[in-house]
Amino acid sequence: MSELRWNPQLADWVITATHRQDRTFLPPRDFCPLCPTRPGHPPTEIDRSDFQIAVFENRFPSLQRRPPEPAVTGTALTPVAPAVGTCEVVVYTAPHDAALASADLDHLRRLIAVWAHRTLELGARPEIACVFVFENRGEAIGVTLDHPHGQIYAYPHLPEILRREADNGRAHRSAHHSCLWCDLATEELADGRRIVVASETWVATVPFFARWPYEVHLTPTRHVGWLHELSAEEADGLARILKAILLKYDALFGFPLPYVMAIHQRPTDGDDHAAYHLHFEFYPPNRTEAKLKYLAGSEAGAGAFINDTLPEETAARLRALEPLDLAALR
Amino acid sequence: MSELRWNPQLADWVITATHRQDRTFLPPRDFCPLCPTRPGHPPTEIDRSDFQIAVFENRFPSLQRRPPEPAVTGTALTPVAPAVGTCEVVVYTAPHDAALASADLDHLRRLIAVWAHRTLELGARPEIACVFVFENRGEAIGVTLDHPHGQIYAYPHLPEILRREADNGRAHRSAHHSCLWCDLATEELADGRRIVVASETWVATVPFFARWPYEVHLTPTRHVGWLHELSAEEADGLARILKAILLKYDALFGFPLPYVMAIHQRPTDGDDHAAYHLHFEFYPPNRTEAKLKYLAGSEAGAGAFINDTLPEETAARLRALEPLDLAALR
Repeated sequence: MSELRWNPQLADWVITATHRQDRTFLPPRDFCPLCPTRPGHPPTEIDRSDFQIAVFENRFPSLQRRPPEPAVTGTALTPVAPAVGTCEVVVYTAPHDAALASADLDHLRRLIAVWAHRTLELGARPEIACVFVFENRGEAIGVTLDHPHGQIYAYPHLPEILRREADNGRAHRSAHHSCLWCDLATEELADGRRIVVASETWVATVPFFARWPYEVHLTPTRHVGWLHELSAEEADGLARILKAILLKYDALFGFPLPYVMAIHQRPTDGDDHAAYHLHFEFYPPNRTEAKLKYLAGSEAGAGAFINDTLPEETAARLRALEPLDLAALR
Repeated sequence: MSELRWNPQLADWVITATHRQDRTFLPPRDFCPLCPTRPGHPPTEIDRSDFQIAVFENRFPSLQRRPPEPAVTGTALTPVAPAVGTCEVVVYTAPHDAALASADLDHLRRLIAVWAHRTLELGARPEIACVFVFENRGEAIGVTLDHPHGQIYAYPHLPEILRREADNGRAHRSAHHSCLWCDLATEELADGRRIVVASETWVATVPFFARWPYEVHLTPTRHVGWLHELSAEEADGLARILKAILLKYDALFGFPLPYVMAIHQRPTDGDDHAAYHLHFEFYPPNRTEAKLKYLAGSEAGAGAFINDTLPEETAARLRALEPLDLAALR
């Protein structure tokens, strides 16, 4: 069962998806459903003996192309809607233990092309309001499969964070005749203290208003809305800055840093979103090597985030870690 | 250092509070700072040999009555503001291992009176926009001190969730000439499937639009905005329904269930918030006895919550657990 239920307190949809409780939970590596199928063994999710990058629909989807009718009847105050949309899994590499950070630039450019292709294809469907590419990494963030992979959710509405960004980006453009994210990147480059690494085409910062201690945003210097609008040079720039951030993250505490990676792209709901600027956001839960930040009372109950670190200091720490030179990456 | 930084993407403040990284972290019980001071030992946070309920300012506050000047200079795009406000700790009981669920009704009524008193006093200060009483319970939710206690944050602005509730409550009243929360309680009582327990004065539900599997909301049946407006009968009703929910939570899996408890009260910013209706929200992170729900990509990155359970089923499960009879509680 799967449906959207309206929360009139917050004016927002929640996805109720009850078939997901039994989803595969940290299986032993011999039973990894994201590995290639071994000859003579039952097929995994990917019925091939090898692959570069694999994309398929999630077996335990929150949103479905042809969802069932909602199980409950809504009211005028609390309507329900079918959980229409698509949930896809993107398997980054065939080897089970291959970290994305150690993939070469060719492979990262291939992954960016896959993300761009899926965004274009899913975003073209009339029932899809936005395509959200993301990755949950690490058990600390609740990952249930440790094979390197990300996910794509194509939502039938604008979820709250994307809606607020779209609204605030549009309001900024109306007021200032410029792009909010272009202006932020310009200010960060001029200030310099929160820059982690930068190139002609991309800027990585711990944003001035970071909610998480080692939060990093990646912003293209040109005003583009979607991954599929990136030029070959910009896609190469993204591969390099992405690899650099992943390497820096793993160097930070000497272990693979857990994180949520959220790719915020322009909505595809048909409204005018010309103000919206593509960017990546990384939220690692670690506030120190051993301590995690939790979303507790202030964050979950009131919506007020508390960051126990100074963005100027965490940016300096990440900036000082290898790699320092994007041009030298291979 | 402590300051508010503006996030123009989300039009929201984030609290940057760097002195909190070294706050006391799961001390051994002999060094619990929330226990009464033992004769001949150095004073704890409470320099008394016994107490019923203790309230004091947090030693590691995110918000302060007289905050330091911000350490960084903002810009027009990303302003900063002093982190004005107050963070208080409410120690529920002198005994270190006393669960709130086992406190008698007298003690719970006393705690409600303490919350009401602090709300009235902090809310009267002109720089305070809202008084947020909450509790984080359990290591799974990031609690750093296991002595039973809650917290109070008096914010200088309306944090995002409280602002949205205030806005949506006001819009509902304009459109329907009635209270959103009164109407929700009426619908839930008429439907019955999501009622956990109810009395003349209070209703406990797993809300239709629950984001967390065992989320419970407590709503007074009369339209009141603050705890200090409750009549003696309503305060008694709250003590009983609160005790019942805490006992049911601990009976659910046979261990003290971790949760965030958020008390949503009418803002005190001087605007017209007559539409706003006091309510409690509990978010336990457990989706099963052994599995936690995490706020990962869809929730943290897009704002789209996924609930893997049916509110009708989790409400039935909580409803069937002891205690069944509010009148029999002592």
